[in-house]
Amino acid sequence: MLRPLGNRVIIEVAQEEEKTIGGIVLASAAKEKPQTGKIVAVGEGEVLENGSTVAVPVKVGETVMFEKYAGSEVKYEGKEYLILSAKDIMAVVE
Amino acid sequence: MLRPLGNRVIIEVAQEEEKTIGGIVLASAAKEKPQTGKIVAVGEGEVLENGSTVAVPVKVGETVMFEKYAGSEVKYEGKEYLILSAKDIMAVVE
Amino acid sequence: MLRPLGNRVIIEVAQEEEKTIGGIVLASAAKEKPQTGKIVAVGEGEVLENGSTVAVPVKVGETVMFEKYAGSEVKYEGKEYLILSAKDIMAVVE
Amino acid sequence: MLRPLGNRVIIEVAQEEEKTIGGIVLASAAKEKPQTGKIVAVGEGEVLENGSTVAVPVKVGETVMFEKYAGSEVKYEGKEYLILSAKDIMAVVE
Amino acid sequence: MLRPLGNRVIIEVAQEEEKTIGGIVLASAAKEKPQTGKIVAVGEGEVLENGSTVAVPVKVGETVMFEKYAGSEVKYEGKEYLILSAKDIMAVVE
Amino acid sequence: MLRPLGNRVIIEVAQEEEKTIGGIVLASAAKEKPQTGKIVAVGEGEVLENGSTVAVPVKVGETVMFEKYAGSEVKYEGKEYLILSAKDIMAVVE
Amino acid sequence: MLRPLGNRVIIEVAQEEEKTIGGIVLASAAKEKPQTGKIVAVGEGEVLENGSTVAVPVKVGETVMFEKYAGSEVKYEGKEYLILSAKDIMAVVE
Repeated sequence: MLRPLGNRVIIEVAQEEEKTIGGIVLASAAKEKPQTGKIVAVGEGEVLENGSTVAVPVKVGETVMFEKYAGSEVKYEGKEYLILSAKDIMAVVE
Repeated sequence: MLRPLGNRVIIEVAQEEEKTIGGIVLASAAKEKPQTGKIVAVGEGEVLENGSTVAVPVKVGETVMFEKYAGSEVKYEGKEYLILSAKDIMAVVE
Repeated sequence: MLRPLGNRVIIEVAQEEEKTIGGIVLASAAKEKPQTGKIVAVGEGEVLENGSTVAVPVKVGETVMFEKYAGSEVKYEGKEYLILSAKDIMAVVE
Repeated sequence: MLRPLGNRVIIEVAQEEEKTIGGIVLASAAKEKPQTGKIVAVGEGEVLENGSTVAVPVKVGETVMFEKYAGSEVKYEGKEYLILSAKDIMAVVE
Repeated sequence: MLRPLGNRVIIEVAQEEEKTIGGIVLASAAKEKPQTGKIVAVGEGEVLENGSTVAVPVKVGETVMFEKYAGSEVKYEGKEYLILSAKDIMAVVE
Repeated sequence: MLRPLGNRVIIEVAQEEEKTIGGIVLASAAKEKPQTGKIVAVGEGEVLENGSTVAVPVKVGETVMFEKYAGSEVKYEGKEYLILSAKDIMAVVE
Repeated sequence: MLRPLGNRVIIEVAQEEEKTIGGIVLASAAKEKPQTGKIVAVGEGEVLENGSTVAVPVKVGETVMFEKYAGSEVKYEGKEYLILSAKDIMAVVE
C-alpha cells in the first residue's frame, strides 16, 4: 500500500474511453489528458507555519477533478496512480 | 454536481453573442475572450496561515467579471464551466 | 453597477487630449498611455494573513495616478474602465 | 498636489549638469542617470501583515540617493517627478 | 556515518533491475530514473518561522517514493546515496 | 555625509593593488572584483513583519567581506562607495 | 580571522586527490567538484521573522557535505575558503 505524506493524495485516474469514429480508434495525441479520478489514499494534512495541521479536504472514495498536468505519475504493483497535492484538486464530483 | 474546494468558484461563462456585420459572422479569432459569468458553486473559503478560514466573497447566482485567462476550463455532464480562484474575480456585476 | 472585490478599485481613465501639430493629429502610437483616472468604485479592502482587513486607501471621486500597464481594462455598459489593485495606485491628485 | 500612497515618496530628481568638453555638449546617452533628488512628499507608510504601519523613514525636504532605475517617472503640472517606494531609497544625503 | 541536517533524509535508492529482451540488456537511456528507496537516516526536522520544529514524517528503514529528480546524489564510503528534503517524499510504501 | 537607510551599510571598497608581471600592469579585465571593504556608515536595521527592528550586525570601522556583485556603486563628493544590504555581508575580517 | 555573519559558515574545502591513470594526471575538467569540507567558523545563527535566533546546526571542526555549487569562494591570507549558508549543508560526516 502507498501512504501519501503531508497534504498529498493518491488518485486512480479515470481512463477516458477511446473515442472512435466509425470504428477507427483516434490516435492518443487526439485524446485530452483526463482530469478526473478516484481518491485511493490521503495524507495527514498540511503543517502550517504556526505548527497546526490542516486536514486534506477530500476523502478516500471521492471522485475529484484536478488541475491538468498536476502531480506525479507513479507505478505501484503494476497499476498507475497520480500523487498530487490536495491544492491541485479543484472540485469534488458529487 | 461539482463542489469546488478551497477558495475556488465554478462559473458558467457568458457566451458572447456572435457579432455580425451585415449578416456575416465574424471569425472566432475576432471575438474577445469573455470575462463574465454566473457563479454556480463556491468553495468553503481559503485557509490562512493562522488556521482561520476566509469565506469566498461571492454568492451562487451572482454575475462576476474575472481576470482574462484565469482558471481552468472543465467539462461536466456535457456543459463547460470555468473553475477559478476567488482571487481572480475582479468585480460583481449588480 | 460593478462592485470591485478585495482591494481592487474601478477607475474611469482620463482621456488624454489629442496632441496636434498645426492641426495634424498625431498617430496614436505617439501618445503616452494615460496614467490618471477617477475612482468610481472601491472594494472592501485586503484581507491580511492574520484575518483582519485593511481598507482601500482611496475614495470614490478621487483622481489618482497609477502604475503604467497595471490592471485590467474592462467594458461595462458601453464604457471602458480599468480595474486595478489599490497597490498599483501611486498617488492621489489633490 | 500629489499625495503618495503607502510607503511611496515623490522625488524631484536632481538634474545633472550638462558635461561639456571645450564647450561641446555631450550627447545625452553619455550622461549617467541621476540617482539623487529632493523628497517633496511622503506616504503614510507601509502596512505590515500584522496590521500595524511603519512610517516612511525620510522627510520632505531631505535629499536622498535612490536605486538606479527604481520608481515611475510622472509628469504633474508640467514638472517631472519620480514616485518610488521608500525601500528604493538607499541613503539620505546630510 | 552521514547525519542529515534539518528536514533532510538520506536514501539508499532502489536499483531497478536491468530490463532485458531476449537476453539483450537495454541501454541505460531506456531505463526510467528510479523513484523508490530505503530511508537510512533522517534529520531533526524543519524549524518553522515561529521557532518550533516539525519532525520528519518518515523513519529509518521505511521504503519511500520520492519526486523524480529531487535531491542530491552523494557518494560516501563507496556507496551512492540520495540526500533529499522530506518535502520531496511523496509516499511511504507499506 | 551619507546616512544609509534600513539594513543598508556604506562601504569604502578596498582597492586591489595592481598586479604587475615584470613591471607590466595587467589589464583591468584581469583583475578580480574586490570583495572587501571598510564600513563607513550603517543603517538603523531591518524592520521585521512583527514591527520590531533587527540591528545591522556590523559596526563602522570594521572590515568586511561581501558577496560579489552585491550592492550599488555610488559617487559622493568625488569618492566611490558601495551601498549594500547587510544581508550581503558574508563575514567580518578580524 | 574571518567571522561569518548570520547563519553562514566558513568551510575549508577538502581537496580531492588527483586521480591518475598509470601516472597520467587527469585534466581538472575530469574532476568532480568536491562537496565535503571542514567547518572553520560559524555565524551566530538566523534571525527569524519573530525576532528569535536559530543557532547554526553545525560546530567548528565538523566535516560536512554541502550542496554542489553553493556558497562563495573567498581567499583569505593566501588560503581558499567557502562561505555558505548553513541551509546548504546537507549532512555532517561522523
